Amino acid sequence: MVKKEGVYLGIDLGGTNIGTAAVKDGKVLAYHKTKTQASKGPEVVIERIEKTVLKVAEELNCSPSDFQALCIGAPGAVELETGVVNDAPNLDWIDVPLGTTLEKNLGLPVFVDNDVNVGVLGEFVHGAGRGHKDMVGVFVGTGIGGGVIINGEMHYGGRGSAGEIGHMVIVPKGRRCGCGKKGCIEAYASKTAIGAAIQKQIDKGKDSYLKETLANNKNKPLSSSLIEEALLAGDSVTTEVIKKAQFYLGLLAANLVNILDPDVIVFGGGLVEQLGDDFLKPIRKTARKYYLQQKDAKKVQILASTLGDHAGTIGAAEAAKRRLRSIQ
Amino acid sequence: MVKKEGVYLGIDLGGTNIGTAAVKDGKVLAYHKTKTQASKGPEVVIERIEKTVLKVAEELNCSPSDFQALCIGAPGAVELETGVVNDAPNLDWIDVPLGTTLEKNLGLPVFVDNDVNVGVLGEFVHGAGRGHKDMVGVFVGTGIGGGVIINGEMHYGGRGSAGEIGHMVIVPKGRRCGCGKKGCIEAYASKTAIGAAIQKQIDKGKDSYLKETLANNKNKPLSSSLIEEALLAGDSVTTEVIKKAQFYLGLLAANLVNILDPDVIVFGGGLVEQLGDDFLKPIRKTARKYYLQQKDAKKVQILASTLGDHAGTIGAAEAAKRRLRSIQ
Repeated sequence: MVKKEGVYLGIDLGGTNIGTAAVKDGKVLAYHKTKTQASKGPEVVIERIEKTVLKVAEELNCSPSDFQALCIGAPGAVELETGVVNDAPNLDWIDVPLGTTLEKNLGLPVFVDNDVNVGVLGEFVHGAGRGHKDMVGVFVGTGIGGGVIINGEMHYGGRGSAGEIGHMVIVPKGRRCGCGKKGCIEAYASKTAIGAAIQKQIDKGKDSYLKETLANNKNKPLSSSLIEEALLAGDSVTTEVIKKAQFYLGLLAANLVNILDPDVIVFGGGLVEQLGDDFLKPIRKTARKYYLQQKDAKKVQILASTLGDHAGTIGAAEAAKRRLRSIQ
Repeated sequence: MVKKEGVYLGIDLGGTNIGTAAVKDGKVLAYHKTKTQASKGPEVVIERIEKTVLKVAEELNCSPSDFQALCIGAPGAVELETGVVNDAPNLDWIDVPLGTTLEKNLGLPVFVDNDVNVGVLGEFVHGAGRGHKDMVGVFVGTGIGGGVIINGEMHYGGRGSAGEIGHMVIVPKGRRCGCGKKGCIEAYASKTAIGAAIQKQIDKGKDSYLKETLANNKNKPLSSSLIEEALLAGDSVTTEVIKKAQFYLGLLAANLVNILDPDVIVFGGGLVEQLGDDFLKPIRKTARKYYLQQKDAKKVQILASTLGDHAGTIGAAEAAKRRLRSIQ
């Protein structure tokens, strides 16, 4: 068997699913997806990851060690150098040596990164950020994640924890965020925050298209398609709540522009995918109002992600390529 | 006459003073300072700049063209490529071709940059940020300026306007800022904002050590030494106002850490120089409370600038060196 020239494995490890792709130049050659089953503990999850790799290799008639390298995006804080997942709340993992275990069992160079970072890298190299130099990615989901690309490279920062854009404090002493602190943008504009704000209006006696759904799904985040349904039905509570979230996301974008003046800000995540550019229009408008430098304001693009679910795997494969190159 | 090996000219062009230094490896070899006299128009100011250069050359027994290159930090928006000062409100300049004029008259390569950017670069290479990789500089004065260093290089961004840290919106729909927008940190923690907040308390009937000074100096910013005097005298209004400013600056620092995870944040400007580390202690404390990544929180240093008034000239000389190298 010969080495697969230019083919890298990218894995998106989520709390619910594991997605593994063999990728060449941003194109997915083979893909396999399975449930994470995090409740069964790290060993089972790692076994399941390995199985997806074997499936993908099988589909391409090769063995895992024939790929150039592998990178896995994990949902939490990771140690880039050692490949240890320090803290991944969605998996209930503390200090799991993910990188070394996979490397030993699969026989190829393995790198570990944060899932949002690799998703942002994917969008930068093969998605909405393509062709630019500096980009910020903002993923709006149950939380708000992000990543910063400077001069074509992922910016990690001194402790490897750059890009925690969801925890920009935007309202001093404001709403309690899931992280325990107060006033983070995540507490105002994540899907969780949007659901809570709609619920609050209902509790105040307002009627809403989503009243029943929310009552039947306590503590479960609203789906993006339901939010779209409510908006299309003209539900005034949902419309108002989304408007406020867009205002905060506009301020967030403006703050990022005033600090970093990137070429492009890419918004991703389920809600953005569902609602498309209509969701971004008011964000763009607010953001531009708050740029200090008004000259060439339109040069700073605010775009929706284009890779969708594949941002994570394609980005992880790109990260594998870049990190292999950096150690060679 | 032979070229001065490794000697660069750095000029700090301010609304009040022009400071010009010949610098070698961060050491000032000769320095001359004069009044800007901005009211007399750009031609007079440029002549005065040239005179300071001639004085400095004279002191070192050479002519301006014997220096390797010159960089001038201007107080406003500049076009890096052309050396045009697009908009400098303190000088009342619009689209002044500063770079080409100086280059023609002085006969050496001339670069133009923003004054805060070069000050931040000075602190990074020869001051408090020395030895680090990523740094954010925050200068608290009548406004709040800043600059971002990534991977050892000044980060300009796509439109050249990165580092406008004072215009991070920290209170949505909050206080009106000098820039015309609402809720910028500059409207809460600059010296101008501090003076206004003290005045507001006095207007409400509170007594303050600074009551008379403020009454006699309407529309003039409070001096840093007077603020220190009031604090030392135990003035409760000033103490409270400074505490609030420190809280906002702490949030600002935390936001920068959550986005960029720099190795060091350097605070500069008159107030920081006057009050020293005592001013930074509460900022540090608030900031750390708001880091998302609490691991190695102390690794992110929050320090006071060390170059003082010379940050601008030393930084401009460093910028001259770097930009000359980049075009060679």
